Amino acid sequence: MQDRIAPVREQMRRINVQAFLVSSRHHLRYLFGFTGSNGMGLITSDLCFFITDWRYREQAREEVRHAEIIIVYRDLFAGLKEKQILQPEDRLGFEAQHLSFRAFSELQKNFDKIRFVATEHIIEKIAIPKTPAEIASIRKAGAMAAAVWEQILPFIRPGVCESEIAAEMIYRSRKLGSETEPFEPIVASGPRSALPHAHSSSRRLQAGDFVVIDFGCVVNGYASDVTRTVAIGEPPAKLRQAYFAVKEACRLACEAARPGMEGIELDGVARQYLDACGFKEQFNHSLGHGLGLDVHSLPRLGPESKDVIPDFAVVTIEPGVYFPNLGGVRIEDDLLVTAAGNEVLTPISRELFIIA
Amino acid sequence: MQDRIAPVREQMRRINVQAFLVSSRHHLRYLFGFTGSNGMGLITSDLCFFITDWRYREQAREEVRHAEIIIVYRDLFAGLKEKQILQPEDRLGFEAQHLSFRAFSELQKNFDKIRFVATEHIIEKIAIPKTPAEIASIRKAGAMAAAVWEQILPFIRPGVCESEIAAEMIYRSRKLGSETEPFEPIVASGPRSALPHAHSSSRRLQAGDFVVIDFGCVVNGYASDVTRTVAIGEPPAKLRQAYFAVKEACRLACEAARPGMEGIELDGVARQYLDACGFKEQFNHSLGHGLGLDVHSLPRLGPESKDVIPDFAVVTIEPGVYFPNLGGVRIEDDLLVTAAGNEVLTPISRELFIIA
Repeated sequence: MQDRIAPVREQMRRINVQAFLVSSRHHLRYLFGFTGSNGMGLITSDLCFFITDWRYREQAREEVRHAEIIIVYRDLFAGLKEKQILQPEDRLGFEAQHLSFRAFSELQKNFDKIRFVATEHIIEKIAIPKTPAEIASIRKAGAMAAAVWEQILPFIRPGVCESEIAAEMIYRSRKLGSETEPFEPIVASGPRSALPHAHSSSRRLQAGDFVVIDFGCVVNGYASDVTRTVAIGEPPAKLRQAYFAVKEACRLACEAARPGMEGIELDGVARQYLDACGFKEQFNHSLGHGLGLDVHSLPRLGPESKDVIPDFAVVTIEPGVYFPNLGGVRIEDDLLVTAAGNEVLTPISRELFIIA
Repeated sequence: MQDRIAPVREQMRRINVQAFLVSSRHHLRYLFGFTGSNGMGLITSDLCFFITDWRYREQAREEVRHAEIIIVYRDLFAGLKEKQILQPEDRLGFEAQHLSFRAFSELQKNFDKIRFVATEHIIEKIAIPKTPAEIASIRKAGAMAAAVWEQILPFIRPGVCESEIAAEMIYRSRKLGSETEPFEPIVASGPRSALPHAHSSSRRLQAGDFVVIDFGCVVNGYASDVTRTVAIGEPPAKLRQAYFAVKEACRLACEAARPGMEGIELDGVARQYLDACGFKEQFNHSLGHGLGLDVHSLPRLGPESKDVIPDFAVVTIEPGVYFPNLGGVRIEDDLLVTAAGNEVLTPISRELFIIA
């Protein structure tokens, strides 16, 4: 992880800050290895500090690398202040998306001579290209999701309720070694499958349903994120047609992805195809997003995204088509993009599975 | 929920704001019934608005009460601005703990003539006294946790690893109807039981271990939060002694709690007893916290808390004693505090359970 600090310092020079405060828990894990829930990192041009409270003392000593550990008994910022690391007039960068207004106010109170610089996506961008070890973790999380899928298929049948399937998925994920769920699994059936962000409910599966199942596993903190849609009995013609269009859109995007592309361009590959199939209005979300420690990360793959996909990015490819009050289809895989060729990290068949 | 808006308006008058922006998802559920993950509420002296994006249109229509629903396709704040609800020079209260610095900046950009008033705990305080329906939900979540505990006891045995027990607990919780986990369950054994915030690890239980198990269930969004500590084989004398001290501290606090008490006072009941037992240094966290839609809420019960416990508050009572590198004990119950008498909402025996 030592080599992850150097690019942060490079960005610090670019935005002209003498110090950078890391508050996102994903970034604390990425830069320092800390997996607890309360901590802050402070990076200066030549030093790194990791500050946490006494509850995490042992854990910080075990986990934290590349930083001097500061343990406090009360307020993290007051603890930082005592160390007198920051000089008056220093410019301090902070993560505007990952600091509450209240925490920012506390920071201001403790460092009244410091000039604060709100930043966005500094670490997120550095974290996009994945190392071989990171890729190995996501690949393992993807294979684990595939194993969960194999185990869960027999449970998907008429009469079972959505939340029961979700419970079985979580159970099997954990038994297979998933550290946690990267997000609450979505099991959305029948008309509910038309809601891209439905929770699992007590609705029971019935003949004619499409069932959208969106879930993931976590290995070494790294997430997989996969969606499959299955049919309970013979599906309505419109949904069957949508299924094959979405499947082809997913395949086309996985094939087309290249380092150097912008998010809008790759999104366009799937969007143009679905448009040509007559599903322009029904594909009403983005194609995908970066994947790593944070399950929803950069680069964004959407119709307005200028984010560039670098070599060794891992992204989700998740086209979907939704008909209100009828049902929806989404197929999502995780894709490693490299100049030498892409690799789908979620080895699950995309064929339409009809459960009789 | 209509009667939940009136006390917000009362607080708005007290702090002299013409409008109040609600951003905490727990508060959006509390005030308007919305269970999705992206939305904002705006309360004025005579109107209420709930704003969310198109993905939650159907869900908002089904769930949201007591507010006019505004659906946006992009930015929530831009959508609010278009409605011209706020007047120049209006003072707008916002939840400083529940708005990122970035979101606050967006708010500022959209409403450049408005004066912003950072607030804390406005809704949290209103939500402390629970209605009969809320109490019924927490009681059900407590009974569910008790049922999980009964089912999980046979799984706690030497050779089983912590994360396997956590997986079984989640599975059984969900099968019993828990909507989700209010937090990642803690299963911490042996020396790890001395870490109050340990995750469940791959450590296998062995003779002589104390195992701290901290978990909860969720019913209608309301959480239970319970901890029990069991012994694997005959425990070291020091831990056995600590167990009975913690158990008595828990009982004393549950008995002593009365509406009108401050957090520091109730915390003191348990703390003084553990102090008298010689465990002053080893009880190194607060006694407990309020419980509701948010599992860690007000009132705080700690050695510095001036929070007053009102009639019909629900709090956790969770004294603990920890010996680094040896082990720890924590016993936690959820307590309804009323002038007519208290009720433990987590009906699980506190007797020391020794697994041979």
